[in-house]
Amino acid sequence: MSCNEAIIRESDDCPREFCGIFGIFGDQEAAEKTYLGLYALQHRGQESSGIAATDGKEISLHRGMGLVWSVFQDPYIMPRLSGKAAIGHNRYSTTGSSDLMNSQPILIRSRGSQIAAAHNGNLVNASELRNMLENKGAIFQTTSDSEIVLHLIARSKKASIDEKIEDSLIQLSGAYCFVFLTPSKLIAARDPQGFRPLCIGRAGDAFVVASESCACDIIAADYIRSVKPGEIVVIDERGISSRFMPPRDPKAFCVFEYIYFSRPDSIIFDEKVDKVRRLLGKKLAEEAPCEADIVIAIPDSANTAAIGYSQASGIRFEIGLIRNHYVGRTFIAPHQNARDLDVRIKFNPVTGVLRGKRVVVVEDSIVRGTTLKQLIHLIRSAGASEVHVRVSSPPVVSPCFYGIDISSRGELIASSHRVEDTCRHIEADSLAYLSVAGMLSVVPKGNLQCTACFTGNYPTKVPENFSKEIFAQSRGE
Amino acid sequence: MSCNEAIIRESDDCPREFCGIFGIFGDQEAAEKTYLGLYALQHRGQESSGIAATDGKEISLHRGMGLVWSVFQDPYIMPRLSGKAAIGHNRYSTTGSSDLMNSQPILIRSRGSQIAAAHNGNLVNASELRNMLENKGAIFQTTSDSEIVLHLIARSKKASIDEKIEDSLIQLSGAYCFVFLTPSKLIAARDPQGFRPLCIGRAGDAFVVASESCACDIIAADYIRSVKPGEIVVIDERGISSRFMPPRDPKAFCVFEYIYFSRPDSIIFDEKVDKVRRLLGKKLAEEAPCEADIVIAIPDSANTAAIGYSQASGIRFEIGLIRNHYVGRTFIAPHQNARDLDVRIKFNPVTGVLRGKRVVVVEDSIVRGTTLKQLIHLIRSAGASEVHVRVSSPPVVSPCFYGIDISSRGELIASSHRVEDTCRHIEADSLAYLSVAGMLSVVPKGNLQCTACFTGNYPTKVPENFSKEIFAQSRGE
Amino acid sequence: MSCNEAIIRESDDCPREFCGIFGIFGDQEAAEKTYLGLYALQHRGQESSGIAATDGKEISLHRGMGLVWSVFQDPYIMPRLSGKAAIGHNRYSTTGSSDLMNSQPILIRSRGSQIAAAHNGNLVNASELRNMLENKGAIFQTTSDSEIVLHLIARSKKASIDEKIEDSLIQLSGAYCFVFLTPSKLIAARDPQGFRPLCIGRAGDAFVVASESCACDIIAADYIRSVKPGEIVVIDERGISSRFMPPRDPKAFCVFEYIYFSRPDSIIFDEKVDKVRRLLGKKLAEEAPCEADIVIAIPDSANTAAIGYSQASGIRFEIGLIRNHYVGRTFIAPHQNARDLDVRIKFNPVTGVLRGKRVVVVEDSIVRGTTLKQLIHLIRSAGASEVHVRVSSPPVVSPCFYGIDISSRGELIASSHRVEDTCRHIEADSLAYLSVAGMLSVVPKGNLQCTACFTGNYPTKVPENFSKEIFAQSRGE
Amino acid sequence: MSCNEAIIRESDDCPREFCGIFGIFGDQEAAEKTYLGLYALQHRGQESSGIAATDGKEISLHRGMGLVWSVFQDPYIMPRLSGKAAIGHNRYSTTGSSDLMNSQPILIRSRGSQIAAAHNGNLVNASELRNMLENKGAIFQTTSDSEIVLHLIARSKKASIDEKIEDSLIQLSGAYCFVFLTPSKLIAARDPQGFRPLCIGRAGDAFVVASESCACDIIAADYIRSVKPGEIVVIDERGISSRFMPPRDPKAFCVFEYIYFSRPDSIIFDEKVDKVRRLLGKKLAEEAPCEADIVIAIPDSANTAAIGYSQASGIRFEIGLIRNHYVGRTFIAPHQNARDLDVRIKFNPVTGVLRGKRVVVVEDSIVRGTTLKQLIHLIRSAGASEVHVRVSSPPVVSPCFYGIDISSRGELIASSHRVEDTCRHIEADSLAYLSVAGMLSVVPKGNLQCTACFTGNYPTKVPENFSKEIFAQSRGE
Repeated sequence: MSCNEAIIRESDDCPREFCGIFGIFGDQEAAEKTYLGLYALQHRGQESSGIAATDGKEISLHRGMGLVWSVFQDPYIMPRLSGKAAIGHNRYSTTGSSDLMNSQPILIRSRGSQIAAAHNGNLVNASELRNMLENKGAIFQTTSDSEIVLHLIARSKKASIDEKIEDSLIQLSGAYCFVFLTPSKLIAARDPQGFRPLCIGRAGDAFVVASESCACDIIAADYIRSVKPGEIVVIDERGISSRFMPPRDPKAFCVFEYIYFSRPDSIIFDEKVDKVRRLLGKKLAEEAPCEADIVIAIPDSANTAAIGYSQASGIRFEIGLIRNHYVGRTFIAPHQNARDLDVRIKFNPVTGVLRGKRVVVVEDSIVRGTTLKQLIHLIRSAGASEVHVRVSSPPVVSPCFYGIDISSRGELIASSHRVEDTCRHIEADSLAYLSVAGMLSVVPKGNLQCTACFTGNYPTKVPENFSKEIFAQSRGE
Repeated sequence: MSCNEAIIRESDDCPREFCGIFGIFGDQEAAEKTYLGLYALQHRGQESSGIAATDGKEISLHRGMGLVWSVFQDPYIMPRLSGKAAIGHNRYSTTGSSDLMNSQPILIRSRGSQIAAAHNGNLVNASELRNMLENKGAIFQTTSDSEIVLHLIARSKKASIDEKIEDSLIQLSGAYCFVFLTPSKLIAARDPQGFRPLCIGRAGDAFVVASESCACDIIAADYIRSVKPGEIVVIDERGISSRFMPPRDPKAFCVFEYIYFSRPDSIIFDEKVDKVRRLLGKKLAEEAPCEADIVIAIPDSANTAAIGYSQASGIRFEIGLIRNHYVGRTFIAPHQNARDLDVRIKFNPVTGVLRGKRVVVVEDSIVRGTTLKQLIHLIRSAGASEVHVRVSSPPVVSPCFYGIDISSRGELIASSHRVEDTCRHIEADSLAYLSVAGMLSVVPKGNLQCTACFTGNYPTKVPENFSKEIFAQSRGE
Repeated sequence: MSCNEAIIRESDDCPREFCGIFGIFGDQEAAEKTYLGLYALQHRGQESSGIAATDGKEISLHRGMGLVWSVFQDPYIMPRLSGKAAIGHNRYSTTGSSDLMNSQPILIRSRGSQIAAAHNGNLVNASELRNMLENKGAIFQTTSDSEIVLHLIARSKKASIDEKIEDSLIQLSGAYCFVFLTPSKLIAARDPQGFRPLCIGRAGDAFVVASESCACDIIAADYIRSVKPGEIVVIDERGISSRFMPPRDPKAFCVFEYIYFSRPDSIIFDEKVDKVRRLLGKKLAEEAPCEADIVIAIPDSANTAAIGYSQASGIRFEIGLIRNHYVGRTFIAPHQNARDLDVRIKFNPVTGVLRGKRVVVVEDSIVRGTTLKQLIHLIRSAGASEVHVRVSSPPVVSPCFYGIDISSRGELIASSHRVEDTCRHIEADSLAYLSVAGMLSVVPKGNLQCTACFTGNYPTKVPENFSKEIFAQSRGE
Repeated sequence: MSCNEAIIRESDDCPREFCGIFGIFGDQEAAEKTYLGLYALQHRGQESSGIAATDGKEISLHRGMGLVWSVFQDPYIMPRLSGKAAIGHNRYSTTGSSDLMNSQPILIRSRGSQIAAAHNGNLVNASELRNMLENKGAIFQTTSDSEIVLHLIARSKKASIDEKIEDSLIQLSGAYCFVFLTPSKLIAARDPQGFRPLCIGRAGDAFVVASESCACDIIAADYIRSVKPGEIVVIDERGISSRFMPPRDPKAFCVFEYIYFSRPDSIIFDEKVDKVRRLLGKKLAEEAPCEADIVIAIPDSANTAAIGYSQASGIRFEIGLIRNHYVGRTFIAPHQNARDLDVRIKFNPVTGVLRGKRVVVVEDSIVRGTTLKQLIHLIRSAGASEVHVRVSSPPVVSPCFYGIDISSRGELIASSHRVEDTCRHIEADSLAYLSVAGMLSVVPKGNLQCTACFTGNYPTKVPENFSKEIFAQSRGE
């Protein structure tokens, strides 16, 4: 899935968040370490970034629009974020909204105490909770799920902050990981079904929590383990401890994190992303072999699967597309009409590799297919004699309600086209997807995965307003 | 009072706000008109600026740090603020906080409805209300009084938004003017004691509310009248109507608005600022005559009073100090030690006017006296033979709890120095203030004024935490 | 002359520059002092600003678009400008060109040596010199006169830099002041006819040169004297010395510096601006008395003349217009059509002062009359019963070729309208200008003034291309 | 060569430029196409960017610091660059200098005509030419070679601009490609020895010149051929024509363009970069085989060579290092001391690929070896049992005077260490370089290559000041 396919349709009530979170407790340079952690998690969100840090008494906060390095480049900022505990957040670019209000962490004061929160995921009962809270007089300044939870915490009758948080989280349904910061504690939590990844690391006396292990690596922290589904990890001066929410089934680890979203060098759900991704490619080669001269990937997310495909098939791996990484908000005059311009800006075909070749193009997933169609055209223009597309995941037929930007059914090419129709639409010589069974056979503990986007089997109740939205959009409204 | 005397000491719980507010209903260019209104009210706040506008269905919001023109200079912004009703806000620079969260208007969603609010003033029971609300589970993301009121509105049991607002406002104590915007209404309110000014204007079919009439002038709207103490003005498609909160005494129109804060070309409290300010100068000349050659003002705020002094005394008015208006965040190396540098940057003495002259320097008010001392030194360096300071208001002896940046008693030179001591401290040849009686004799409806900063007679209960703060600060803590 | 009358028509070859220059030698904080000097000279140029400093070996340079404080606000900049000699420059906003190339100082390397230059004024033989130099193979990267002179210096056959500069300057015709910086010297020069002001100051061991004395005041330097026409002042480790270019007549001190351009607290041409400006007002009252109730000024440049008029006439001085100083690049929607919007944004009438009054409005000069017409309308809207305009300078009938932004004859209302026609055009009840004789009677050493813009008597040959340009424009081309 | 090895030591007189240039004639959207071309050439320079365009009469110019997209993101800029011919330039980040003066294109006026120029390369007789020109009175405002050539053109006695340019270029010695723009012509030139690449493309009626063919691809222009050594290509309304400078030997096509600098999807010197780069890897595998489990590349520049090594050796290719592409000006607190932090920020090892493996690490070149040493440490930390470094180019023993950022001999690890010492220094288990003969065997027309950095055989006279500089630096001065 190339990043410009990631189009989001969200109602104001139901934003889907794709984010990276990080927290650290016990390091004199907590904010600096959080900065580095966010830097490693930049692929999980590029719209805004923020850090909240505490010196044990007060929590300070800085947030801004843009990449991590630009949000914190003013030399005056980091010194203000002093203290030995901090949390941070990267937010995915969705709507281009310029409102800083939706950036995280959110910092509030309630009953005389400060608490900051940042989250990754998407609640399926957000609307119900918002309505319930609004009916009790709550006001909302953002569209973030974090604000909902902070309201619940503020209203909890429980005694301690740990209990209040547990009391609040058990009211949630859907996918979430949270990091909370109080002046004296760092608390992290993963939903009871375990949709989103969250791991624990350690560096000397400091404990770290992060969406992916790559954020531990950058600060030379050791990876310890995943936070368990339903686990609430409390880190303070006395060390680290856990409490657990009541278990909820089915477990539903997001398989898309392996396929596309996480960094290949990360460990998520206690398994290496790179390993799974290569196995997906190998399985794909078994299931959908191809007579061809070379295997290429749509860089960078399909690289590892393409190598797997090459290794299993014995067809030579080549770098057939070069990706331009200097992409920013690009000026393109409205009258710019060079064909395929938007993919030309991001990708360049390597003619010497492609000319006269029968090419297997490995892609990690297909959502709308628009970019892929342009890329196939580009590959053919560079002289490829045949273009065979192999996708290292099954057809995406249903939207995700748990935080991955797979939008309404109306936009999913596989939900309305048979594979041969899609093949014709994208103008490939052949097209094959990995089967669901094949995918599950290589994913660790396959029975625990959420495969809703491939199967339509949702591990939670589907939110009512989502259904309406999807129906409306699939009719072209 | 020169602007660099405006030092604020605030606790997080009790910020004092000095702001300008504006609202318009019924103009196709509501946001543009609000922009111009804020531009005219820029003197009431330079830290941040914001506009909320509605197209009848949704409210959109843009806020930013800095002067009005810079916040809205991106050409993409104004077109997004479409619709025929809008409110706007300028916030005073107080703490240099870079957090956009405290900028206004605040836009919230509550019980499925949007409402935006902006205010000017300061509540004296803000802490009590916050505590009460926090104890009921409210969470606070800002330190603004607007957020308190929006919580109260959201929790009101009343049926209509008009009633909810009234129901909320009557719980407030202190100084405030509010503008609220819903998708279909503009609602403006002034506190029952009438501390802060708010006026109504009309331009064609559109109605305008603004902190000062100069914001009506800039859009060629006709001034109609002041909003009355306790009046809630409701403007919608059906026109303009009013409801009234229960009356509360004593009335307490802020006399400092006439003395210093408002623009001289404005009408506030249904009286021209310029007229009152000149009368203050004339009365001062009667009460505190002086043998001198020329009268000069500390520009620009004391200009009109100085002209009044000149007219009543017959001593020639001259422009003896030039003010530099190109002031921004100035780089001054820490080792810069030219004497009086900070006043040299803002003011230049006109040697030709001052040399060999006995000079009456008219100032509108003295808070700490630091800048005035430097200015007197500057005036003497330019050759003045005598410097006589005349102040067109009484000694400031008590802090203001209602929105003027007169800080704790420990910083008020007049609260700890007799006039002759102050005179010696600032190194003037003579010093005289206008008397409270003299001041009240020229202010319209003198019995309605708040004179707390000059007399210590507070027209409301003094907030407890303010007392502690002041006491602490006056001991040098 | 209100600033939005300052419209410039320039050919690329013949830009007119209105700038402020500053130089200091012998101060460990030379760049910081230059920064402050430029700050005081900000009224002479707001488009760009720059400082060149030398540590005795290398010259470093920083320039940027915008006001002084913003160009140098990055804390990394000033420490790079180390050394004990520096020069600085403010450039006037003319064409809105965003090209930093035209900002000054210009720093070049020639025959292995660095030299930086900044200037104020306008050469009348710039085109000839450029053509001559281009024909000899010179290339031009800017449209600045400084670049011409640097070319001449580089080509001079003289031995020392002092001689090279003299050798170059004597080829120039027109108005100029220059400051040059080499790694070891500060050299300042004023043209032999003395059009533009330049003064010398001293602070301890350091010498200062500046366009106006207000730049000496801000760093607490003592004013010594004006640089003489044709004088080249050389400041280095051995102290200060002078050499003189051959004298050239007539002397031609720009009278407009007194009337409008310089700051009233400055000394220029060894006379106080404020004093001259007040005398202009007094003389105007003698020449053009008026039956009226009050005298007001168009702020701020006409303030002093208005006070003079008031003093001589006995008619009360009042502040009838308030100027908004928070002006920036303003967003105004193209469909904004409130009448007089552009003056409403800059000026607000004080109704209480004006209502029912016969008003004398003192303006320092009239160029096109457009703004004045709008202001008169505004003053009448505020209730003035009569509006009598008195101008403290004669009618501007001819363009200036020496650095004041008085443009082509086609735009000068007085060059095509009789006084009574202008009066009708601007909708005043009466209009009178100061006579040329009256003006000269109060200006020091009147016979030395350049009065070309009022008389058409140019003290130099008129540049040929200017004549054509003017002729073309007066035909509306 | 990872990009943070690219440290430059330059004297002011002798900057080495690594840039991308582009020109187009005959397209109504010339500036937009140039923008896209620069975008594709971004890897050749990230410090500044600029475009000059002509409408047939005037040349307009916009330049700025930063990446292409940011320099041109203001929507007002492109419309000002109208016309159907344009040239553009990307400048490499070398010294971090903030002076826009050194950005290109440079636009000058000479003998009444405008001409703009942009270049890529480095002259070896720049100092001599500058001295000669300065002695004739030329002044220099930049340190760019373009300014030298523009001076020469301006002084040429030839009649036409084509002849003037030829007359000037034949005085140059060293490496250069130029694009010139006059109001009516686009002229491009490549030095007679052919150091730097420059190609011609065609899109409809428009002709294109660009440093690499990838800039043709992005605008869907067809690649035609390389500009020949010594060829001057003139494009105007009459079409395209060529003139030739006198031939100069030896030919000296920069072999480093193949090894590292160009994009793999480009054609340079009429050969595909990707193809050469893969052959280098294959040859390396022949010359320096290795017992190992996997082959990985230092991404991204060594990817293709690593694939070649894998293909020739039969050892499996894997992606063992992930590169973070969200790199900007990074805040790193001075007390940040996580080991290897600077490589951790750019690269993450894929533990699952590396653990327990004997790894061949393919790098394209080694300059100082500092980053490589850190990367080897990182790869070992990820569990690699052996790390064998194979370099797809010979040891770099001599500095480059022709535009590649290979600095003084003192910094080149291979100039002072034997291979085994270098191996020990970078803590590799083995280290082998490709031989010069091996390299030349796979490079097209091997006898024409410049191999000076590998052999010390310079195809031109070595500039004297370079020699001194190098000598000084190698002594640690």
